[in-house]
Amino acid sequence: MIVVIGGGPAGRLGAMHLAQAGAEVRLVEQRKIGGQCLHERCMTVCALNDIARLIEYARTQKDLGILDSVPVVSYPMIQKRLCEIQEKLSSVLDAETRRAGVEVIYGAEGRLEGDRVFIDDEEVRADAVLAATGSRAAIPDIPGTSLSGVYTYQTLPAMPDLPRRLVVIGGGVVAAEFAHIFQAFGSEVEIVTRHGLLRDLDPKMRSTALRDLGGVVIREETAVVSIEGRGRVRSVLLSGGEELAADAVLLATGLVPRSDSLQGLQKGPDGAVIVDRRMRTSVEGVYAAGDVIGPPYLTPAARREGVVAAENILGRATVMDYTGIPHAMSLRYDYAFATAGTDGGFTLSAPAPAGPGSFWDVAGGFAGVAQVRVDPETGRLLGAAAAVPGASMLLSYLGYMIKQGVTVDEFDDIVEVHPSTDGVYWLARHAAGLLRQRKK
Amino acid sequence: MIVVIGGGPAGRLGAMHLAQAGAEVRLVEQRKIGGQCLHERCMTVCALNDIARLIEYARTQKDLGILDSVPVVSYPMIQKRLCEIQEKLSSVLDAETRRAGVEVIYGAEGRLEGDRVFIDDEEVRADAVLAATGSRAAIPDIPGTSLSGVYTYQTLPAMPDLPRRLVVIGGGVVAAEFAHIFQAFGSEVEIVTRHGLLRDLDPKMRSTALRDLGGVVIREETAVVSIEGRGRVRSVLLSGGEELAADAVLLATGLVPRSDSLQGLQKGPDGAVIVDRRMRTSVEGVYAAGDVIGPPYLTPAARREGVVAAENILGRATVMDYTGIPHAMSLRYDYAFATAGTDGGFTLSAPAPAGPGSFWDVAGGFAGVAQVRVDPETGRLLGAAAAVPGASMLLSYLGYMIKQGVTVDEFDDIVEVHPSTDGVYWLARHAAGLLRQRKK
Repeated sequence: MIVVIGGGPAGRLGAMHLAQAGAEVRLVEQRKIGGQCLHERCMTVCALNDIARLIEYARTQKDLGILDSVPVVSYPMIQKRLCEIQEKLSSVLDAETRRAGVEVIYGAEGRLEGDRVFIDDEEVRADAVLAATGSRAAIPDIPGTSLSGVYTYQTLPAMPDLPRRLVVIGGGVVAAEFAHIFQAFGSEVEIVTRHGLLRDLDPKMRSTALRDLGGVVIREETAVVSIEGRGRVRSVLLSGGEELAADAVLLATGLVPRSDSLQGLQKGPDGAVIVDRRMRTSVEGVYAAGDVIGPPYLTPAARREGVVAAENILGRATVMDYTGIPHAMSLRYDYAFATAGTDGGFTLSAPAPAGPGSFWDVAGGFAGVAQVRVDPETGRLLGAAAAVPGASMLLSYLGYMIKQGVTVDEFDDIVEVHPSTDGVYWLARHAAGLLRQRKK
Repeated sequence: MIVVIGGGPAGRLGAMHLAQAGAEVRLVEQRKIGGQCLHERCMTVCALNDIARLIEYARTQKDLGILDSVPVVSYPMIQKRLCEIQEKLSSVLDAETRRAGVEVIYGAEGRLEGDRVFIDDEEVRADAVLAATGSRAAIPDIPGTSLSGVYTYQTLPAMPDLPRRLVVIGGGVVAAEFAHIFQAFGSEVEIVTRHGLLRDLDPKMRSTALRDLGGVVIREETAVVSIEGRGRVRSVLLSGGEELAADAVLLATGLVPRSDSLQGLQKGPDGAVIVDRRMRTSVEGVYAAGDVIGPPYLTPAARREGVVAAENILGRATVMDYTGIPHAMSLRYDYAFATAGTDGGFTLSAPAPAGPGSFWDVAGGFAGVAQVRVDPETGRLLGAAAAVPGASMLLSYLGYMIKQGVTVDEFDDIVEVHPSTDGVYWLARHAAGLLRQRKK
């Protein structure tokens, strides 16, 4: 029998892959199937952002005189409906997993002590183990994080209503995404970040993101000393002595692998289980996949890692390849990026064309941005990025093409649907033209 | 000198391509640059549909208790703003065209009499001609089409306000798109069509489209005898004797090539200029591209035809390839299709996953549909289709992959952004699994 610990994207996909190949598989899930992806992260952000975008677009169209009003959200109803849909999707995943032949055990904890496997307190015999215990929100080491009204993305579903003043602590994608959502919903939002907000982003993409966060007050290079309040949060105290009034605080200070229950195997300093490219841990027969092995903390990567682990458990040597895997962020537009992993090349950027989802933004003179990075010798596409409606889908396929090694010449063969927000293919063609001229 | 007649997608792209290669190019445009695409069709539908979708999504979210209200449109303001943006985009295109080195002449008519070229009444010497005069809305041969209140997609911008009752005559994409838009805006809409509505669509895609057209009354297999009224339209008289009250009528009864000004070259019965795959007409030195050569009446195809004509004018033998060109329709979701052009294979369909733009539709139990058609021997992807948010962008890249001859196995290499509305890649993987099982 094979034991899979954790029913998130990595564990569930790995378990199904094993069962479909004929293995006997027991999946142990403490809470609900679907993991953080369904219950706290990807799907939650998607759900909330679908509403946030509607409201922002309504604002734009009202400003243009096209619409008479902007709807107002009921936050408690959002949470209620979101929860109902998550339950629905969870039961779909449960059925799908069982149909694949996986035995699913809920409410129990799978644990490892080296090569010994426990389900709660009972030791079980396993031919192999796939540990996919995920991650959790990091809590910064400052006073006041346990006050009522202080949330992480994991505890946010417990927030009863929209805060009037929300302080988001953190400078990454999660901070930006939730700040954008609550700003659209009508909260006054401030972001406080020790370094820069989205500082790893390319400057053009970053300035587009800052545009999307227009109404949010952003304090960079600022440390939080403490969160203040008696029982309930009242304010956030900054290193400069300033105090920001707050009805709620969102800690968006990163993720940490959730590996406490996995003992006796090699881990990194942050607790990430160390694996090779075949998802093998330091203990023979024990594999790990998903957030518990550390970044990139992405559902599609986790799924694939789960399948790679399963393949290796089945005796088929398979390695994980991260080339071209797209990263994304959802604000008013989608932001998405993919790279071949190599440095160098020349970069071209241009405003993206207006299309579905961005047409009325033309009135404001901006419909997003697109980028390509190209090897000047071979014409190979080394990277692409876009901040436009639909960028996530676009970059999923561009990521694949980057991995396949396409050159910019090949974009002549793409015939798009018109109008399209895809500025990448125009840029790629433009790059091809430049390279042809240079060769003359 | 090379004369290009018509500044729509085919003429404009062809002219720029010629000028960039160093040719002296004169582009003659009677009205505004950008053609029907910008002023009457693609961009107009995109603009109106962005508003229609916002309203429909607001209705869904209001029904769920998430939003307190649904905004109401001001139709005259939509027209005013749309017109302003079209002017803006038109001046961008004008500048881009001139920057490429094209001489643009507005307000004049380019005409052909065999190999003789006229700009208005003046004959000009030309080394070659690219005729890209486009198409116009077909007017059915019934009484009453010239009554006030009767429109085609070309005259629709003159409609002063939202009609209370709109009758759409026609059964194709244009009929469906405008019926959907005006229904969302709050008009009572009826579609009357001689045959079936969207009858060429695959049954699963068609039933999804009918779902999107939920509030529209649809009368199929019904002929219109006449449009009635005194000066102004009052009703539409059907062959069965029934009379439908109407404040406005939209004739969506197809397109016809606009070739009256092109004399002395071979045409089809509908007036389409006959060209070979190199865009050469029956007259030496005269090329044609875009809607004037007949279907598919798509902007990206027209653009490409313009470039192919330009390449051949420049003496570089190039043929037009229609393989994998995506077709699309915009209702609540995007509908898009691409095919390798060959028949056969097996087809798989499945509900699409919920993602950006469709998350809250899960409450209603439906988030679109995806399809693949696969060659059982080779595993080659022969066709794909989807009715989901973002389907147009998705099918643009799938169309390219279909043209490249990808097999369903290769979809293992695609790592998507999660969540995604892309159900096609799941289906392709599923198909790959079925084929592997069969081979065992």
